Amino acid sequence: MAAGRLTAVQLAEACLNRIAEREDAVKAWAYIDPKQVIAQARALDLEPRRGPLHGLPVGVKDIIDTVDMPTEYGSPIYAGYRPQWDAACVAVLRKAGVNIMGKTVTVEFAMRHPNKTRNPLNPAHTPGGSSSGSAAAVADGMVPFALGTQTGGSVLRPAAFCGVVGLKPSFNVINRAGVKPNSESLDTVGLMARNVPDAALMFTTLIGQSAVDFSGQHSPLRIGFWRTPQWSHADTATREAFSKALPILAKAGARIQEVELPEAFNGMSATHGSISDYELVRALECERMHFAEKISATLMVKIRQAEKCDFDRYVTAQRHAAKCRLMLNDVFRDHDILLVPSASGEAPLGLQSTGDSTFNRIWTALHVPAITVPVFKGQSGLPIGAQLVAPYGEDRKLLIFAEWVHKVLTE
Amino acid sequence: MAAGRLTAVQLAEACLNRIAEREDAVKAWAYIDPKQVIAQARALDLEPRRGPLHGLPVGVKDIIDTVDMPTEYGSPIYAGYRPQWDAACVAVLRKAGVNIMGKTVTVEFAMRHPNKTRNPLNPAHTPGGSSSGSAAAVADGMVPFALGTQTGGSVLRPAAFCGVVGLKPSFNVINRAGVKPNSESLDTVGLMARNVPDAALMFTTLIGQSAVDFSGQHSPLRIGFWRTPQWSHADTATREAFSKALPILAKAGARIQEVELPEAFNGMSATHGSISDYELVRALECERMHFAEKISATLMVKIRQAEKCDFDRYVTAQRHAAKCRLMLNDVFRDHDILLVPSASGEAPLGLQSTGDSTFNRIWTALHVPAITVPVFKGQSGLPIGAQLVAPYGEDRKLLIFAEWVHKVLTE
Repeated sequence: MAAGRLTAVQLAEACLNRIAEREDAVKAWAYIDPKQVIAQARALDLEPRRGPLHGLPVGVKDIIDTVDMPTEYGSPIYAGYRPQWDAACVAVLRKAGVNIMGKTVTVEFAMRHPNKTRNPLNPAHTPGGSSSGSAAAVADGMVPFALGTQTGGSVLRPAAFCGVVGLKPSFNVINRAGVKPNSESLDTVGLMARNVPDAALMFTTLIGQSAVDFSGQHSPLRIGFWRTPQWSHADTATREAFSKALPILAKAGARIQEVELPEAFNGMSATHGSISDYELVRALECERMHFAEKISATLMVKIRQAEKCDFDRYVTAQRHAAKCRLMLNDVFRDHDILLVPSASGEAPLGLQSTGDSTFNRIWTALHVPAITVPVFKGQSGLPIGAQLVAPYGEDRKLLIFAEWVHKVLTE
Repeated sequence: MAAGRLTAVQLAEACLNRIAEREDAVKAWAYIDPKQVIAQARALDLEPRRGPLHGLPVGVKDIIDTVDMPTEYGSPIYAGYRPQWDAACVAVLRKAGVNIMGKTVTVEFAMRHPNKTRNPLNPAHTPGGSSSGSAAAVADGMVPFALGTQTGGSVLRPAAFCGVVGLKPSFNVINRAGVKPNSESLDTVGLMARNVPDAALMFTTLIGQSAVDFSGQHSPLRIGFWRTPQWSHADTATREAFSKALPILAKAGARIQEVELPEAFNGMSATHGSISDYELVRALECERMHFAEKISATLMVKIRQAEKCDFDRYVTAQRHAAKCRLMLNDVFRDHDILLVPSASGEAPLGLQSTGDSTFNRIWTALHVPAITVPVFKGQSGLPIGAQLVAPYGEDRKLLIFAEWVHKVLTE
């Protein structure tokens, strides 16, 4: 596009054609208006290029406010709702000349009640959630980029299940103004892309930083492989894939060490749960008061369980998380990144659940950046991701290392 | 009211009369509709009592969304804006049977450009900000309670300047869904009340906990008196007041020790600034893009300065804050609470500035609960507050200790 060989209109048309062809099967979109998309593309083609994302199509998870498109948060309570403003992250993308294509399907309030989206690689399988539509749309070639959010594993898990790159940056570095709150100590704006350099481009645009340089040499990567206390949840294919991957990475020059994180980290999954419970119950106070009948049974059950987390348990959980965040700095003295599974295996069969966030939620609660890259295959031939985790604020390094790992494991 | 000697309508009428009499001079309200207030009171009188706050009037800072009242965030950009839902904290109060009286004046986007409110104790002086209307309305007897928010010192400072009790609870324990974001790592919902037990009642209602018991005995209070690196900013009256207060507290049984916090804390004010700068710039991305001409010159200057804080400085600041939060736990091993000034002195003369948050912002960034109680007088006869700070999550203890300190210093 920079060379003038492709216009924003042509690219938008190609995306719309793919969507027209595949949307019935994939159901990735909560809202899309082809006329609006083309009008936006036309306007962008008439402007001087604002940057490397100029004219590129982006899908926006429907938990994120858009002023010119309905924003329904995956809930009938907000049917047809038009927010007063764009979310901050959408405004930044528009400023960069992005073509906001439409709203991608989110699970109800980015929680757990599944929505309509199917895994584009096999429609009998879940695409994961809660950023279901964003992952499916990128995986299916409907858009090259999409915004998602993660409170537990809502970016990494669907990205892994659909075989795309999913990035959950360090906590709060992408602003959340205009993102419907679920659990404010955890909610993180993230993104999906087809490959790591694309993810880096969108990330640096979102935080207003210069592009990541992937051409440089880095010293041999010190990778800490952590089985996590959830290793027993990982399926055979995942465990075998990691066993095979480690020697390949070592042969390519990485120093691989198995790590055991301190005892305190074993409680981080429960700590994530307590923080999430306390905050979720309160964030949806207004909806429960006025529209309880429009909340799914799945979510109501979850809310009732979550109500058991009182102030004292919440405070204890927050203290535990704060302590583990500092302890994690020590772990990273010996390792550039940690390598862990992105999920317990490939996307499960069936649409009644979006899978579980066991392997993601502790990193969300620890506020560190995490990325999934599609590198393995499961027994049904669906993708399995490798999750890489870096210290807080080292998002750029994480991207560079993830690109190296991806190359080594897929070449 | 519980005894049936006062109805919600009678109380609402008394408040409305006070407002009618004084609003021209004080200008505490961004929106109030007497008919709506009376209708709500009437409905509440017909219901069984839902709890101790049933029928009590509360003012809501106009940075907090209300579904049935305009919410303008102190900005002409949002003139007449009606949010789709109540903020979570408003929903909780309605569930408790509170009578939401109206919207109290906020400084533009809860930042620094002064709004119209005057100090009810002396209209030539600022009421403080950004929760200007909430503090003034409670101080002037217009309402017994009000909601505020604090990103720097926006609850404590106006409360101190107007001579009321102001509580900024531990970070995130009162949910922020529906509160316009300013700086998400700092924004904290807080409240104003006429006295500490009232503040406790509203706080426990907001977090869904049982009432604080003020009748119990507590062991002699271990108070750490910290001059803070900002002591030289405190005026003579403030310094003298603290010199006099310490022996009174000691005589009443408290163990007073002067403390010096570790060196690292001297940087916390700058760290607060970096976090606030990075997040503010991004939170207002949409407004700047579409409505730059409706943003005050004061705020635009601030935003341009704030843009200098880049990703790396932000990350460094967040790491520093995380470290200091853990270090503060050690300080609290030897002290039940810290005692520091609430502001550099009484409310300054003039309305061109709301004063500065020097003595408040580090506690906001440290996420610990802080309260101001009106205990001293300045040279112009305006109140000076004592600020008490407790460990994260010990909000209840803070309230009990604050009540003791207030009694000792004012009896």
